[in-house]
Amino acid sequence: MSREEGLYEKEPPIPPNEYVRIRHTVIREFVSKIFVAAGLSSSDSWIVADVLVTADLMGISSHGIQRVRRYVDGLLHCCVNPKPKMRVVRDFGATALIDADNGLGHIAGVKAVEVAVEKAKKYGISLVLVKNSHHYGIAGYYSLRAVERGLIGVSTTNSEKLVAYVNTTTRSLGTNPIAVGIPRRVPPPILFDAATSVVPVGRIEVYAKLGKKVPDGWVIDHEGRMLNGDATKILSEIKAGRASILPLGGLGEEFGGHKGSGLAFIIDVISGVLSGAAWGLHVKYTTDVAPANVGHSFAAIDIDAFMPREEFYERIESYINELKSLKKHPSADRIWIPGEKAWSTMMTRLQIGVPVHIKVCEELNLLAGNLGISERLCDISKS
Amino acid sequence: MSREEGLYEKEPPIPPNEYVRIRHTVIREFVSKIFVAAGLSSSDSWIVADVLVTADLMGISSHGIQRVRRYVDGLLHCCVNPKPKMRVVRDFGATALIDADNGLGHIAGVKAVEVAVEKAKKYGISLVLVKNSHHYGIAGYYSLRAVERGLIGVSTTNSEKLVAYVNTTTRSLGTNPIAVGIPRRVPPPILFDAATSVVPVGRIEVYAKLGKKVPDGWVIDHEGRMLNGDATKILSEIKAGRASILPLGGLGEEFGGHKGSGLAFIIDVISGVLSGAAWGLHVKYTTDVAPANVGHSFAAIDIDAFMPREEFYERIESYINELKSLKKHPSADRIWIPGEKAWSTMMTRLQIGVPVHIKVCEELNLLAGNLGISERLCDISKS
Repeated sequence: MSREEGLYEKEPPIPPNEYVRIRHTVIREFVSKIFVAAGLSSSDSWIVADVLVTADLMGISSHGIQRVRRYVDGLLHCCVNPKPKMRVVRDFGATALIDADNGLGHIAGVKAVEVAVEKAKKYGISLVLVKNSHHYGIAGYYSLRAVERGLIGVSTTNSEKLVAYVNTTTRSLGTNPIAVGIPRRVPPPILFDAATSVVPVGRIEVYAKLGKKVPDGWVIDHEGRMLNGDATKILSEIKAGRASILPLGGLGEEFGGHKGSGLAFIIDVISGVLSGAAWGLHVKYTTDVAPANVGHSFAAIDIDAFMPREEFYERIESYINELKSLKKHPSADRIWIPGEKAWSTMMTRLQIGVPVHIKVCEELNLLAGNLGISERLCDISKS
Repeated sequence: MSREEGLYEKEPPIPPNEYVRIRHTVIREFVSKIFVAAGLSSSDSWIVADVLVTADLMGISSHGIQRVRRYVDGLLHCCVNPKPKMRVVRDFGATALIDADNGLGHIAGVKAVEVAVEKAKKYGISLVLVKNSHHYGIAGYYSLRAVERGLIGVSTTNSEKLVAYVNTTTRSLGTNPIAVGIPRRVPPPILFDAATSVVPVGRIEVYAKLGKKVPDGWVIDHEGRMLNGDATKILSEIKAGRASILPLGGLGEEFGGHKGSGLAFIIDVISGVLSGAAWGLHVKYTTDVAPANVGHSFAAIDIDAFMPREEFYERIESYINELKSLKKHPSADRIWIPGEKAWSTMMTRLQIGVPVHIKVCEELNLLAGNLGISERLCDISKS
């Protein structure tokens, strides 16, 4: 988004007085130090911090630095290996399997994308699976790493149970996202990054903050009854493990709940079952004592294997121009290309800083202090 | 489905007196003869007939033999090349690009899967794209071809415009399905095969036949108004080009319309843009004078590249057993695995025959007669 078009934030900080704006490099530096203090190597710390800060830059705060404490808890108290020895345990043609050695998923993800990119350049397409991993943040980060190298990047992951499989009432699937990044001649690249649930938990958190009512079709209780209305109450039911998010397509099959949960299942089979990781009911949380054993997949496609790159770029521009020229629905603000909102938010926040909620700031300050770090991310008393 | 479990049909023939049951081999033989008379080679005719009859066996009649006339019209009157010279025009590592020479998509699809399977055995994964093709029937057919060879098979295709991109009102995307087939130790394999629209047109046809009301959330007119109620009327609006089907996730973004239309777009970029085929607004219908230039993709994954096959099978069985043991939603008949309904329908119809609507039967009889074929598929006067 150029300056002329003005600033845009996908998830604006509301109410503004509860947030402080901090430059992303400052946050990344600070968060990096926390991870070093929690036992990670400095290069691994930088990777994890960069994935988290990128999520905040893109307006996906549910996957941003508010997760630092969860990861640090896992690192300090049992469950995550701070010094993982990630190894390629299988290598066959255009495929590889990586054992993440119970380390954070971000570290495994960045390594796996590198392998996927190298293999795709050699064979045109590649598929790298990862087992024994943990939560890896936003799936789109890894697709963008491949895009930066000029390739189409695909990533999927499983995650701890939260979603009800079609025609059932309890949690058995993660929100199992898929991200596909497609390069363009000039940014923003196309970035489709979607949970296979009807909404991510982050959306319900936003509704709770705004005092908005949750509609029918997002959440059910364990008897299969639809939960609607008070978002704060529904969020606490979810956090207490007493409610399930519905798959994309909603309840039953009338609007395609079998499609959303089928996609989540397929993603789990590739990321979890085929990789040798856990799946469905067995994927654990970062701070569970048993290893989370999250599984990821990373594929890359070399455009040059199929057509001259410039021709591809031209075709993509035509397609995007055609979508942008369609008749806008009266209820819509504008026509967006996948990833455009996140990219515009990132361009905005690279300029004006990332909004950090004061509670998150206080939590990180406390965490840093406990780890013997003297700096503070922000001085709340001044804001 | 075993005999003990009884017979099951996903799309039962209603009302029964409008259908005749015919053995699938008889239908395939008859339809093959029609395609030979329309100019296809006998082996190509068998392929097209087999894809169509498989759709009917699986209870997806919208993609079954009721499409024969459309294909024959295309073959006879302008638009489809009956003797295509399909060629691999690019071959790089684990990838290939096939030019379908404006022939029927079924023929290209079967050839492309063969190439994908061979390459996946060599490299662990493969991706084969097809351009200059036509409608290829059910995407799942091609995934199952890979499954028969012991591989995971993925297929996507674009198709003529029918779906409104999120936040727009008119048609710009096809129903762009994705099919993923996953082998099990014994059938049925897992077969996820889903249009990225909220429903396929076939569902609205079924509603029209049953006199059921179309709910809000499936179809909009070109002003963006929701169409609901009388399915016959809505179907005629769609057929007249005055209405659009909504993407999976429905209207706007509240329930994920950006996810469904984003998926359709990504599938179009891979199948259409990257292959050199048409995309979005430009994909034509079988009987349009301009070449349809449909694009498809076919990927295969070799399980053995990642883990011993028997271990994979065991893990998949555990996963399926766990899904089947979940708490069933009170509104659901049972818990289904992707592809299980279609497979059960196929097992049933292999035993008791495929229900063919008498109008379809009459149409095929007439078509055969016009092409100088003396046999009849069924004698309606007797039924």
